[in-house]
Amino acid sequence: MSTSIKQPQVITCKAAVAWGAGQPLVVEEVEVNPPQPEEIRIKVVCTSLCRSDITAWETQWPQCCRIVESVGPGVTEFNEGEHVLTVFIGECKTCRQCKSDKSNTCEVLGLERRGVMHSDQQTRFSIKGKPVYHYCAVSSFSEYTVVHSGCAVKVSSIAPLEKICLLSCGLSAGLGAAWNVADISKGSTVVIFGLGTVGLSVAQGAKARGASRIIGVDTNPEKCEKAKAFGVTEFLNPNDNNEPVQQVIKRITDGGADYSFECIGDTGMITTALQSCCDGWGLAVTLGVPKLKPEVAAHYGLFLSGRTLKGSLFGGWKPKTDLPSLVNRYLKKEFMVDEFITHNLLFEDINQAFNLMKEGKCLRSVIHMPK
Amino acid sequence: MSTSIKQPQVITCKAAVAWGAGQPLVVEEVEVNPPQPEEIRIKVVCTSLCRSDITAWETQWPQCCRIVESVGPGVTEFNEGEHVLTVFIGECKTCRQCKSDKSNTCEVLGLERRGVMHSDQQTRFSIKGKPVYHYCAVSSFSEYTVVHSGCAVKVSSIAPLEKICLLSCGLSAGLGAAWNVADISKGSTVVIFGLGTVGLSVAQGAKARGASRIIGVDTNPEKCEKAKAFGVTEFLNPNDNNEPVQQVIKRITDGGADYSFECIGDTGMITTALQSCCDGWGLAVTLGVPKLKPEVAAHYGLFLSGRTLKGSLFGGWKPKTDLPSLVNRYLKKEFMVDEFITHNLLFEDINQAFNLMKEGKCLRSVIHMPK
Repeated sequence: MSTSIKQPQVITCKAAVAWGAGQPLVVEEVEVNPPQPEEIRIKVVCTSLCRSDITAWETQWPQCCRIVESVGPGVTEFNEGEHVLTVFIGECKTCRQCKSDKSNTCEVLGLERRGVMHSDQQTRFSIKGKPVYHYCAVSSFSEYTVVHSGCAVKVSSIAPLEKICLLSCGLSAGLGAAWNVADISKGSTVVIFGLGTVGLSVAQGAKARGASRIIGVDTNPEKCEKAKAFGVTEFLNPNDNNEPVQQVIKRITDGGADYSFECIGDTGMITTALQSCCDGWGLAVTLGVPKLKPEVAAHYGLFLSGRTLKGSLFGGWKPKTDLPSLVNRYLKKEFMVDEFITHNLLFEDINQAFNLMKEGKCLRSVIHMPK
Repeated sequence: MSTSIKQPQVITCKAAVAWGAGQPLVVEEVEVNPPQPEEIRIKVVCTSLCRSDITAWETQWPQCCRIVESVGPGVTEFNEGEHVLTVFIGECKTCRQCKSDKSNTCEVLGLERRGVMHSDQQTRFSIKGKPVYHYCAVSSFSEYTVVHSGCAVKVSSIAPLEKICLLSCGLSAGLGAAWNVADISKGSTVVIFGLGTVGLSVAQGAKARGASRIIGVDTNPEKCEKAKAFGVTEFLNPNDNNEPVQQVIKRITDGGADYSFECIGDTGMITTALQSCCDGWGLAVTLGVPKLKPEVAAHYGLFLSGRTLKGSLFGGWKPKTDLPSLVNRYLKKEFMVDEFITHNLLFEDINQAFNLMKEGKCLRSVIHMPK
């Protein structure tokens, strides 16, 4: 029986492939299979990367903006040509976590799933028939990719794709940690450990909430001036002091900050963040993905005297529920995005983006795919 | 110049003295000096002890009800003959912590101060001129004691002293952890590690909030029946299972509890409590005073997937602000107190109270002072 509906075919295009842990990415010709049930295939317009991408690449999330190329059976939410953001955690809207207004850790499309598609545990990528695995549910370092429709978010078509791709990961993570997870109150004192994109986005979130002091901590002295533009009021370089940084913070804040944020990915610094906030109501929020020691250790007395340690994954944002309005708020200039883009690179220079990130020489590099 | 105001004199009375760490208490004749500025001297009517008293006694808080005997200069809040509860943390009402509605960890009369009075770093107790040190700010194991007026709370004179003395510590700590710190919501699932007075009081607090499942965990099988009276709906003995208790809990709760409470004083169990609550919004509250290892250790992923670890000191109650109304709520039978009293002992049998507590054979022993 013939049908008039256009059936998606295999697409051959360019993608950056990591053939082993820590090895430079190689741009290869890949075959991208058609989307299966509940999936969509999309044309990637631009992408970027987070520090956690380096961690993932070295040891074993990307952010991107795309246009829907084709949709698989059962997908009614998306149509060809629509603009989407893709995210490393999805929103199925039906699990216990999605149904709660207190969580964004979808049980179906959460962090557990890796390398293969949810429906059939297969990959949609191959090179000459040999399977190539997905990356962080989105695999955005490719001209075309296939994602579960639960990991894609339809956004305003007037928003510039080469800017809002940053809202798929670290920038939103920082804003959400300040607004959703910590719920920073006016006049409070905030300490931020690590002044990369995530930390600076916490700073702009804290500034928007009217925090009176925003203390930024980083061992890179070059961060000092840059940080002020994002709201940091005081800069502390732990290497400039003979006493531990948490002691400096407790001294200059008369007992500790109201909120502290660990934006480095260092479990030792999570302890330091907890020690840097005050008795009674001090809240330490951990956002980083630790690269080495996975255990957080802290004296029980820190908790007994009233401190709280809380995790923040993607700033508590539910991707489908919250990202479209976040994009609209960006369009109204409620917060900065463009200012985080320090480099614009061509797809073929993707390894340069990884190097800039490894060396701490960028905030965000936007990688532009071939037109 | 003569004055008609009665000046308090030294009182000689009986007190239980610990001459060394872990040594049995000896009832001795002690001299109790008059109260100094901002202090009051009180006649102890009855007292009790917590598991943490054993910890404090073995390694280097008590709860009591008393009647004001005399007041020192500058004390206007108390008059002779009034009924008071004394507490191990005070409320100065002027420090940063007291002024915040988010804290009860007074900076002036908090946990830091030990053994001597706040004003002059001296003790008010002596035996034949040799100083004897205070205990947990209240020193209630004595017929008369001197406390800072900030550590005493005036309560209704119609409330039975031999019952409400329990509200000075563990019982209120449990209720407050459930109500103030965790703010348990209706229909939720709660896990409680350790079913002593603190844990059972968390259970009654959870029941009052309408929790649908209250899972009690204890290695003592005798706790099972007793726990049901306080609201525990399911009993788990870790020794009855081959798999770790946190795995059992995750299985029977479909992913973990909404709230977990560590009421033992074991940092390893704090980790277990954190592992036993769910992704997204799971909240682990730690109330215990660990006896051995002071470091809490937990995988960062537990936080990143949405869990929170929070400490609870005296259930978040501000003693002066909150205890009088808690006593009134007891009088209205809003929660159980009498049911926690398993033993009534004479002062001379105070070591029996310590032994019953060490052996886990009591909930609370009330120690009655000589009339």
